[in-house]
Amino acid sequence: MPLKPSTLALCAGALLTGLSAGATAQSPMEILQGDAPTNWGKWGEDDQVGALNYLGEAEAKNGAGAITSGKTFTLQIPMTSGSGPVFPGRVPTQHFMATDAGVYMAGKAEPAPGGIKYSDDVAFMYLQGTTHVDGLAHAWYGDKVYGGKSEATSVHGHTHADVGEIGKKGIVGRAVLLDVGRHMGSDDLHRLPTETCIHLKDLEATAEAQGTTINKRDILVIRTGSIARFWEEEPDEQWNAMNEPGLCYSKELLSWLDRMETPMIATDNIAVEKVVQQIDGETYIIPLHGALMRDMGVVLSEIWWLDDLAADSAEDGQYSFMLVAAPLKVEQGTGSPVNPVAIK
Amino acid sequence: MPLKPSTLALCAGALLTGLSAGATAQSPMEILQGDAPTNWGKWGEDDQVGALNYLGEAEAKNGAGAITSGKTFTLQIPMTSGSGPVFPGRVPTQHFMATDAGVYMAGKAEPAPGGIKYSDDVAFMYLQGTTHVDGLAHAWYGDKVYGGKSEATSVHGHTHADVGEIGKKGIVGRAVLLDVGRHMGSDDLHRLPTETCIHLKDLEATAEAQGTTINKRDILVIRTGSIARFWEEEPDEQWNAMNEPGLCYSKELLSWLDRMETPMIATDNIAVEKVVQQIDGETYIIPLHGALMRDMGVVLSEIWWLDDLAADSAEDGQYSFMLVAAPLKVEQGTGSPVNPVAIK
Amino acid sequence: MPLKPSTLALCAGALLTGLSAGATAQSPMEILQGDAPTNWGKWGEDDQVGALNYLGEAEAKNGAGAITSGKTFTLQIPMTSGSGPVFPGRVPTQHFMATDAGVYMAGKAEPAPGGIKYSDDVAFMYLQGTTHVDGLAHAWYGDKVYGGKSEATSVHGHTHADVGEIGKKGIVGRAVLLDVGRHMGSDDLHRLPTETCIHLKDLEATAEAQGTTINKRDILVIRTGSIARFWEEEPDEQWNAMNEPGLCYSKELLSWLDRMETPMIATDNIAVEKVVQQIDGETYIIPLHGALMRDMGVVLSEIWWLDDLAADSAEDGQYSFMLVAAPLKVEQGTGSPVNPVAIK
Amino acid sequence: MPLKPSTLALCAGALLTGLSAGATAQSPMEILQGDAPTNWGKWGEDDQVGALNYLGEAEAKNGAGAITSGKTFTLQIPMTSGSGPVFPGRVPTQHFMATDAGVYMAGKAEPAPGGIKYSDDVAFMYLQGTTHVDGLAHAWYGDKVYGGKSEATSVHGHTHADVGEIGKKGIVGRAVLLDVGRHMGSDDLHRLPTETCIHLKDLEATAEAQGTTINKRDILVIRTGSIARFWEEEPDEQWNAMNEPGLCYSKELLSWLDRMETPMIATDNIAVEKVVQQIDGETYIIPLHGALMRDMGVVLSEIWWLDDLAADSAEDGQYSFMLVAAPLKVEQGTGSPVNPVAIK
Repeated sequence: MPLKPSTLALCAGALLTGLSAGATAQSPMEILQGDAPTNWGKWGEDDQVGALNYLGEAEAKNGAGAITSGKTFTLQIPMTSGSGPVFPGRVPTQHFMATDAGVYMAGKAEPAPGGIKYSDDVAFMYLQGTTHVDGLAHAWYGDKVYGGKSEATSVHGHTHADVGEIGKKGIVGRAVLLDVGRHMGSDDLHRLPTETCIHLKDLEATAEAQGTTINKRDILVIRTGSIARFWEEEPDEQWNAMNEPGLCYSKELLSWLDRMETPMIATDNIAVEKVVQQIDGETYIIPLHGALMRDMGVVLSEIWWLDDLAADSAEDGQYSFMLVAAPLKVEQGTGSPVNPVAIK
Repeated sequence: MPLKPSTLALCAGALLTGLSAGATAQSPMEILQGDAPTNWGKWGEDDQVGALNYLGEAEAKNGAGAITSGKTFTLQIPMTSGSGPVFPGRVPTQHFMATDAGVYMAGKAEPAPGGIKYSDDVAFMYLQGTTHVDGLAHAWYGDKVYGGKSEATSVHGHTHADVGEIGKKGIVGRAVLLDVGRHMGSDDLHRLPTETCIHLKDLEATAEAQGTTINKRDILVIRTGSIARFWEEEPDEQWNAMNEPGLCYSKELLSWLDRMETPMIATDNIAVEKVVQQIDGETYIIPLHGALMRDMGVVLSEIWWLDDLAADSAEDGQYSFMLVAAPLKVEQGTGSPVNPVAIK
Repeated sequence: MPLKPSTLALCAGALLTGLSAGATAQSPMEILQGDAPTNWGKWGEDDQVGALNYLGEAEAKNGAGAITSGKTFTLQIPMTSGSGPVFPGRVPTQHFMATDAGVYMAGKAEPAPGGIKYSDDVAFMYLQGTTHVDGLAHAWYGDKVYGGKSEATSVHGHTHADVGEIGKKGIVGRAVLLDVGRHMGSDDLHRLPTETCIHLKDLEATAEAQGTTINKRDILVIRTGSIARFWEEEPDEQWNAMNEPGLCYSKELLSWLDRMETPMIATDNIAVEKVVQQIDGETYIIPLHGALMRDMGVVLSEIWWLDDLAADSAEDGQYSFMLVAAPLKVEQGTGSPVNPVAIK
Repeated sequence: MPLKPSTLALCAGALLTGLSAGATAQSPMEILQGDAPTNWGKWGEDDQVGALNYLGEAEAKNGAGAITSGKTFTLQIPMTSGSGPVFPGRVPTQHFMATDAGVYMAGKAEPAPGGIKYSDDVAFMYLQGTTHVDGLAHAWYGDKVYGGKSEATSVHGHTHADVGEIGKKGIVGRAVLLDVGRHMGSDDLHRLPTETCIHLKDLEATAEAQGTTINKRDILVIRTGSIARFWEEEPDEQWNAMNEPGLCYSKELLSWLDRMETPMIATDNIAVEKVVQQIDGETYIIPLHGALMRDMGVVLSEIWWLDDLAADSAEDGQYSFMLVAAPLKVEQGTGSPVNPVAIK
């Protein structure tokens, strides 16, 4: 009989003391982030939406002010049943018809009185299995999530900082597209090489090359060109969640985002940042999630489809737009699918 | 052994001829709609988004022009795992954590290198089991869906007029709230009695009472006050999908919507219209779905949460706003959850 | 906006000490069970199948020895998509066709090379949402599950005493049907009134009336007649998970089962026992689960369909049979659906 | 925007005539099977379990008669959440805890009155995504399924020859293990090379080498050794659903199975037979499914775990046993998971 691959030995010691493993000693993230910016308490002790608080009525109007032509782009990737891209361990959305015309064609059902027929459908899905917004408690370090609440608030449903709170608020404001892929990419497809770790200076150089002014409280939409690799056929271009171009952790970046009062960062890769990063000789997995999401309350949103918007911006030179994105109000949810709308 | 409740006798005759039951003779809907307005072919033979074609760049800008304060409302109901409201035959969304802090607390997992921990979640859901947008092929009569394509296009996934096409286009424009519940409702909660069938004159009277001008190509957002009954505790107020207030079929209404080039109708009940309607002595189930969705291509969206927006509108007198709603790009999907955003 | 019904206040104190609520003071179950029989350690420190250890090769042969005619009964209730019975909080199994002849009839797919066509299907289900076997760690009190392992072993998958271990062992032995419903029921349907709490003397009286000898290590299959109420139409007979006839907690029963080396108890109600019981003035929910499953390792199996088997036994007087039941090998699972087979 | 990979052009012609594609001309399978054995009508016009009718009371007793030691083997592979093997297009079973001790440890729930705590779980699964039994209507050719009923009976749930009917009957009888992998395999693991197509003479030679008599109405359990490759680590041993050893179509095999009144064939590969077969220069996908399941009503069951049973049989020389297998009573289902039990 094959062995159970997922059976894990229990850490009896950890259970006896009632402490989670990470709490007994400081993790590298705790040491690294010791003096980094934090927004805990800034918007009240029980705040659940973090830097989205920067987006108020004035910012919504400001977003509308960025509209020139009224041209609209929807920024979700297609949701194709059984097809990714998804992070390892997840499966793609599974979509099924609960009923359709087949039942009438097979003589198994009659139309409703009067003659109406209908179809109905269901889905099983990982909520972060397509373009999505993360709730602020989705990732953390130590034993506390955003706002200083216990990580235990996540158990069988987030009772603090779930994505549903972001759904209730909605995301409306001015956004700028930083097409780093076009500025720094070497190929015809305007994509970053997979090994690229994007630094603050790269964002600044991209903005300058585009002639784009980044204002305080602008939503940052960063294009790497990465996610399109998922639909490519060449073997050497195959998409790999663990090796995409993405943002690079640095204190300079954190300070700048803090000063800019950035409410949200959205990207066309699966993790906003480079998944594996080396900092001072130490290996970190998604450290910016700890710094941005957990400490600063900056909302992260991933797997956006930016190629059409970027091509249009390259043509007309307009890189700012009104952004309206509303994740679903999934109570206690970690993440939610979203179809963001850019109006230029 | 209990009998199979769902086993249905097969209509051998229908199978032999290869015709669906509804195709052998004209249904009441086919007769009723004989001379009603249709938009098939108006936007090309293969059009999949119907009256949404009325919403272009000018209408997006016009929507933005409705913004005065920048105050924002998100119009989805909460998605509470295991809780409706849902149409009979569906079950409420089921939400589960794939992982959370419990695994660290139990000593079953270690944080990632560097110290990051995370949660992840899944959902099983009926795609129309919360606030949602219907694809244009969701309901039909005869053997053709919107645009004149065969009903067979719906089988195991809509290959014509799926909701994913609406997700690709997005919905951006000027909308007006018609708070019929407040204008005609008799109770303190500004709700329509459950038996109310809303006529064109009721919409017009509401608009007049509100001082609201309805423009061509405005999205109509109609409040009945009905869906809030779902969360009420009084037995005589219990919500019932089959007996909610809703729009009433009439040729006058169809003509008016056609003249107004209405792209979409959204409501705070489960079916936009009264589910069971009597027309000329004949019983019809959701006849407006046949007339609006299948023949005119008007997009229908249901189960909106309008009470907060309506209370605010009653206070400041502003009933027009920018509406941005983007259902998910569910390929071949019948419907999609949506969290619409109103910006006043 | 409706309030979140499922948002729960956190017990900060419990988290600070790292102890679960039930561990800070003895619960009534801990006091009640202080001197009750326990089998922890009896079959080794890491045993996961408890009293099923009583079933070995001799008992399998003994089971086969009970066969007389070879008549066979399958004892699962039907799995009807969208239909229960299920415990409150669960939803019935949801079954969907992933593909079927509709795709060929609609011209959407071609047969495979050579001409083969096929159908495929999926289900979303609560694993205890039909006739099922519970893993021994499914229910507990204090902070320990069966065998004395920490309750933390259950977190996001049982790493001790999951139902998969029972699936690996299988259940094969001699079983006796105790048709208490027929012996004590007052109606024509041979059902117990819903308020009935079944005592040891009732089991003994039933066996005597049947002329049935209960041997050591016999699997006990107890018929109440309850579950059939689910498919009844009379309002006063409506099935209610919280108010079914079932076994009654008593020390006498525990001692007798211990002496009889009973490996498993199966019933045609949802909880084996009466769900709500009063013991010495204290209210208990499913106390026998604590005593039998957690302390003695007796396997519990519920929602069996026994009416056909019982009618046959009433006719031929044979109440003993070979029982073969194998829950699925759901690794880390709490429960598993099962279709038990009785061979007389 | 990426193109929809799953959008399929509709066969307008097929729809107009109302005939499925396969019905307009004879498929190779229809020609090939023209004179092959069929059991349609043999057990009544509405029979749904086919050759399982060969298993009656005498055969159940006969099965019990094969027991010598009482040693028991459960023959399902492990159900590991997120892990296969599955046929391309399916995803592995997804298992989630609906609740567990985490909620008590996090202070989010209190034990029930008296002190009981519990866990609960759900699964989303392809019903043929583990060891399973196929309903007789699962695969067919032409426009008819087993018994001559229309393929339309499969639409959105099999109303003829669903797996639930097999669940109601149960499978109880004498079985013989034919360990072809051990007899013909070249390696230490007693496995057949992946390209092996097993012929009738191979079965006969294996039986002879084992000293096993195959009786009429014996269930055939055929070991290839294939499925264990799924858990192997060597790249050149990687399991591939499309290239496993399996039975080979031949008229001789069909005739022999017909004469032997074989009720069921079970194997440790994913399709019983070689998935791709060449017959008279024509390519066929799973042709034995057409011949055995659709025409003869022989029940097929796949992905069994036979290595432990086979090793034991090699040691004691006993290759016959009682087999008890009961798929779940999934009404209208195509397939069902099963955990078969062998009692030697």
